[in-house]
Amino acid sequence: MPKKQRVITKIKDKRTKPDIRRALTTSAAADDNTTIIALMLKPGQLSPAMASYFAKCQEKLGFVPNVLAAYAFDNAKLEAFVAMYNDLMLGPSGLSKLEREMIAVAVSSQNRCYYCLVAHGAAVRVLSGDPPLGELMVMNYRAARLNKRQRAMLDFAVKLTVEPWAIKENDREVLRRAGFTARDIWDIAAITGFFNMSNRVASATDMRPNSVYHGQAR
Amino acid sequence: MPKKQRVITKIKDKRTKPDIRRALTTSAAADDNTTIIALMLKPGQLSPAMASYFAKCQEKLGFVPNVLAAYAFDNAKLEAFVAMYNDLMLGPSGLSKLEREMIAVAVSSQNRCYYCLVAHGAAVRVLSGDPPLGELMVMNYRAARLNKRQRAMLDFAVKLTVEPWAIKENDREVLRRAGFTARDIWDIAAITGFFNMSNRVASATDMRPNSVYHGQAR
Amino acid sequence: MPKKQRVITKIKDKRTKPDIRRALTTSAAADDNTTIIALMLKPGQLSPAMASYFAKCQEKLGFVPNVLAAYAFDNAKLEAFVAMYNDLMLGPSGLSKLEREMIAVAVSSQNRCYYCLVAHGAAVRVLSGDPPLGELMVMNYRAARLNKRQRAMLDFAVKLTVEPWAIKENDREVLRRAGFTARDIWDIAAITGFFNMSNRVASATDMRPNSVYHGQAR
Amino acid sequence: MPKKQRVITKIKDKRTKPDIRRALTTSAAADDNTTIIALMLKPGQLSPAMASYFAKCQEKLGFVPNVLAAYAFDNAKLEAFVAMYNDLMLGPSGLSKLEREMIAVAVSSQNRCYYCLVAHGAAVRVLSGDPPLGELMVMNYRAARLNKRQRAMLDFAVKLTVEPWAIKENDREVLRRAGFTARDIWDIAAITGFFNMSNRVASATDMRPNSVYHGQAR
Amino acid sequence: MPKKQRVITKIKDKRTKPDIRRALTTSAAADDNTTIIALMLKPGQLSPAMASYFAKCQEKLGFVPNVLAAYAFDNAKLEAFVAMYNDLMLGPSGLSKLEREMIAVAVSSQNRCYYCLVAHGAAVRVLSGDPPLGELMVMNYRAARLNKRQRAMLDFAVKLTVEPWAIKENDREVLRRAGFTARDIWDIAAITGFFNMSNRVASATDMRPNSVYHGQAR
Amino acid sequence: MPKKQRVITKIKDKRTKPDIRRALTTSAAADDNTTIIALMLKPGQLSPAMASYFAKCQEKLGFVPNVLAAYAFDNAKLEAFVAMYNDLMLGPSGLSKLEREMIAVAVSSQNRCYYCLVAHGAAVRVLSGDPPLGELMVMNYRAARLNKRQRAMLDFAVKLTVEPWAIKENDREVLRRAGFTARDIWDIAAITGFFNMSNRVASATDMRPNSVYHGQAR
Repeated sequence: MPKKQRVITKIKDKRTKPDIRRALTTSAAADDNTTIIALMLKPGQLSPAMASYFAKCQEKLGFVPNVLAAYAFDNAKLEAFVAMYNDLMLGPSGLSKLEREMIAVAVSSQNRCYYCLVAHGAAVRVLSGDPPLGELMVMNYRAARLNKRQRAMLDFAVKLTVEPWAIKENDREVLRRAGFTARDIWDIAAITGFFNMSNRVASATDMRPNSVYHGQAR
Repeated sequence: MPKKQRVITKIKDKRTKPDIRRALTTSAAADDNTTIIALMLKPGQLSPAMASYFAKCQEKLGFVPNVLAAYAFDNAKLEAFVAMYNDLMLGPSGLSKLEREMIAVAVSSQNRCYYCLVAHGAAVRVLSGDPPLGELMVMNYRAARLNKRQRAMLDFAVKLTVEPWAIKENDREVLRRAGFTARDIWDIAAITGFFNMSNRVASATDMRPNSVYHGQAR
Repeated sequence: MPKKQRVITKIKDKRTKPDIRRALTTSAAADDNTTIIALMLKPGQLSPAMASYFAKCQEKLGFVPNVLAAYAFDNAKLEAFVAMYNDLMLGPSGLSKLEREMIAVAVSSQNRCYYCLVAHGAAVRVLSGDPPLGELMVMNYRAARLNKRQRAMLDFAVKLTVEPWAIKENDREVLRRAGFTARDIWDIAAITGFFNMSNRVASATDMRPNSVYHGQAR
Repeated sequence: MPKKQRVITKIKDKRTKPDIRRALTTSAAADDNTTIIALMLKPGQLSPAMASYFAKCQEKLGFVPNVLAAYAFDNAKLEAFVAMYNDLMLGPSGLSKLEREMIAVAVSSQNRCYYCLVAHGAAVRVLSGDPPLGELMVMNYRAARLNKRQRAMLDFAVKLTVEPWAIKENDREVLRRAGFTARDIWDIAAITGFFNMSNRVASATDMRPNSVYHGQAR
Repeated sequence: MPKKQRVITKIKDKRTKPDIRRALTTSAAADDNTTIIALMLKPGQLSPAMASYFAKCQEKLGFVPNVLAAYAFDNAKLEAFVAMYNDLMLGPSGLSKLEREMIAVAVSSQNRCYYCLVAHGAAVRVLSGDPPLGELMVMNYRAARLNKRQRAMLDFAVKLTVEPWAIKENDREVLRRAGFTARDIWDIAAITGFFNMSNRVASATDMRPNSVYHGQAR
Repeated sequence: MPKKQRVITKIKDKRTKPDIRRALTTSAAADDNTTIIALMLKPGQLSPAMASYFAKCQEKLGFVPNVLAAYAFDNAKLEAFVAMYNDLMLGPSGLSKLEREMIAVAVSSQNRCYYCLVAHGAAVRVLSGDPPLGELMVMNYRAARLNKRQRAMLDFAVKLTVEPWAIKENDREVLRRAGFTARDIWDIAAITGFFNMSNRVASATDMRPNSVYHGQAR
């Protein structure tokens, strides 16, 4: 393979139903006219559950997020990623969906992850209806006018990202005093951890975001 | 709750079968006589699959790893964690199980995660039959006498951990020249990402390892 | 003064002509309904040249950039800033105006300067007609698909920002081999230096960008 | 041009008056017998104001500071630099000239800028009449026996240099409590910013200080 | 010398008595079957005092620590090292021997020194009878359950290791308030300094620990 | 003891001969009129060898270096320090005395140690007869015009200071190619290590240099 060739993760698969194939084709090629990751991985076979999930993305969002297309080379990995992502970001929690996305972006800003900043920066704008808030999370969350709760939440998430070895009981205590329960603290930790993972998978593979994110909720 | 009180994640649950309850009790209390994490989380109801998995841990390892006990407050989170962990560390891959554990420890060393260094340092010793190799991964992987392939693998994992924003095509190319396939590179990235997540969940919650790890394969 | 009170740099001044006053009012209050910096500085008297410059901004851009309003408390400081800024960013140079703005944003990203990232991120989008390029400069310039010249230019600017003490002859030689003249290298250095200054003035004073930038050229 | 050749910024210009030419020659060649910067820039035409300024330097200091000689390849850049420099370092301010030079050196120490440490380290010695104070600013300002005001001033300047993104309202509040006005805070920020600029222009071009500085006020 | 050849510091010397020669041979070759450092240094002549000291090591420990074998190429350097080491680690002090070893390991962990972590990690396990304590010092001393005195001691040692320029009167005051005398503070500083030296000598020469340490007190 | 009181390490001791007592008095009090370290340590009894050494310092240098006065509270510690210092800095070596002092200063610059920069910066000036060389070592050794040998030597010393864990065979190989023997490499490592120790003892105790150094060889 020539050194500079970048090859799309081909997620077109004749065994998937036509509408899913169109969805995948759209996200991976037609919509962005670019490759998704810098690794040439052979297409995998989506399980019915995942095929249905992709179809739902296509129907509701109008596209399949490229991170899903990237994982689609291996259905087991895709399912594990989707299960964890959906539990953390969409499941029951004392943190609002916006707060979870704020953590996602503040963490991704420390790791300078292009994919996650684009995709989740858009989510902050959409969920908050406040475009500058999305920019603040991308650029420097410390410049945002946050309430005490959200500032404490992001301070913890960013410290945990930058120097995890230095977290101590007092850091958890600050969260408790800001009103967070033990379960909330777990969720802040788990979401921070999750994006420290995703940022690295995206950076390691040079993952590119769907272009549609750029214009959302500006 | 008094400031310094640390409360065990109680995973004893009357609805689980007696043998599983004993397993959980063993790991969380009897075996270590200590708490597992610094958050007081109410015990969750394990699904039959997870109860069976815990029983299998008890049977094969003689204990339930504390990280599983920690996640057991919420079955959905536990299942997502177990699915991803088992796929990455035990599923099919071009990387040997030892190599995957070497990545786990080299990454955890950068993040100075006590739980993961103890648990996965033991795994490197057990799988390699080479106790000093486990210490080298914990202390400074650069001091180990590694072959070119494993050195390249760990250099990538550690760079991805420390400055993920700086990974570029040349870093992937070095891996390819060391014999890694695209799928192998994905696996290196995904395992590196996974431990960057787990390290932070463990550090955020002050997770304590089962004491049995300390003496394994010395 | 109460601890949390933030007071606008009042640049309304009865001695300036009505249209300039309106311009300043617009930028500082009506347009953004917020304060510009976190220091309460008494309004200064603009020189005719500066008053005319503000009027021209209002006419051409539709607003006076907040950084100018911030400096307006002291006409001498404002004039020195404007002279240097306009020479570097708009004067004759071997670097295109877009390239100069790319340096501005890549440098401001290292320093995580909210004001400069918003204002000059918009400039990159406007001048390039390529919204994702603006995002890439803000988020991680290394992820951008740049030609060799622009990559070398930004690598130099970012190294000079992060570890200026480590610049050596070889770094200049890389620029020369990428086609830059001695004068071009000066300009790269001077623009990099300028934003390392402006980033710090903005961060020290918590300078807020005009809100109009957010939506430009998305 | 041979790789290692370093060429003087020739600021001799037949159109300048003989005494200015002598001044420039002195500073750039005769006095130091070395080149000033590592870029070969064609000599520019000094404006009468700048020629007069150089003559005044020669008359009062006995030499033209090399930084001015370096900028002299382009009169517009020189004038902008001189205007900003003189306003900040010599103009009216609540900070004494010595305090401004202390900031200059403490900032330049963080950036390890040889030119600025030599030139402004000398200024601290001259203005204070305390040679060890100059060394302390160069080596580690924290080791100096400073009053509360000056310590707070330098702590702010150094934090703003090293992690500008982390400056918050409390940092400004510490300055206010140490007796600084809003205008003083602006000046601390602006001088800190200015030397973060100059340090980088000097490091990028390998600017060499006039040798006369070394022996001043020892 | 071929690039990759590693040659043992030959400390066998016909002039030393047979029993010492056996001791040196044991430590450097027979016991570990490996080289000690990555520099080929000709064997030196041990003084009677040092020969006797090596014999005592062999008798009491069963081996000569490799760091001593490494220094043995030059008797003057060996004697100076041994004098300083024994005074600091074994001489009279307000710090217990265990506390001194805890400092040794916490410092060596910051510097990721393989030799010192193995050798002194073993010492912490032996002296404390608490294997996990040795691991905690190696991995992250902040995760250990320490009393206030020992935590303050290690916080100081690690700050002094990582940012010595930032130590200030308040840091010493914290130690005093934790019950340390002036002499104790000197000892903490001197031991911290000593291992910052030894860590670098070991890393610079790729010094390898005696394998016997790995299994001690597990 | 009042919080801010700084007490001299009293090294006057009636049992020492009058001329030594004068020497100690001179260095510690009369000459500098200040305290040496920020710890109140009771004076120790100098051995005849050390008393003689102090006398020789007084005779040859005109003063006793404050670092010696600081260690004089305990004769055993003083002797160990002096033995190691004199062996490394004055004993036989393939490195010239100037080169050893250059390492001392370049290392101390990384650690920003006021005492060592003043004392050994003076030594570089004295030994080289080149005052700017002393400044360059203090400020940024990379800006010095060094030959290949000395540049390699300082690059190694500074890397070993800043990231000792990253030294690898190639770093030693660069030194060998620059002409250094195995013994020379040991000496570079040992001197680098020694000043990483001394810097920390000095910073931990706020050690102040003799004022006479400031004016030497300017």
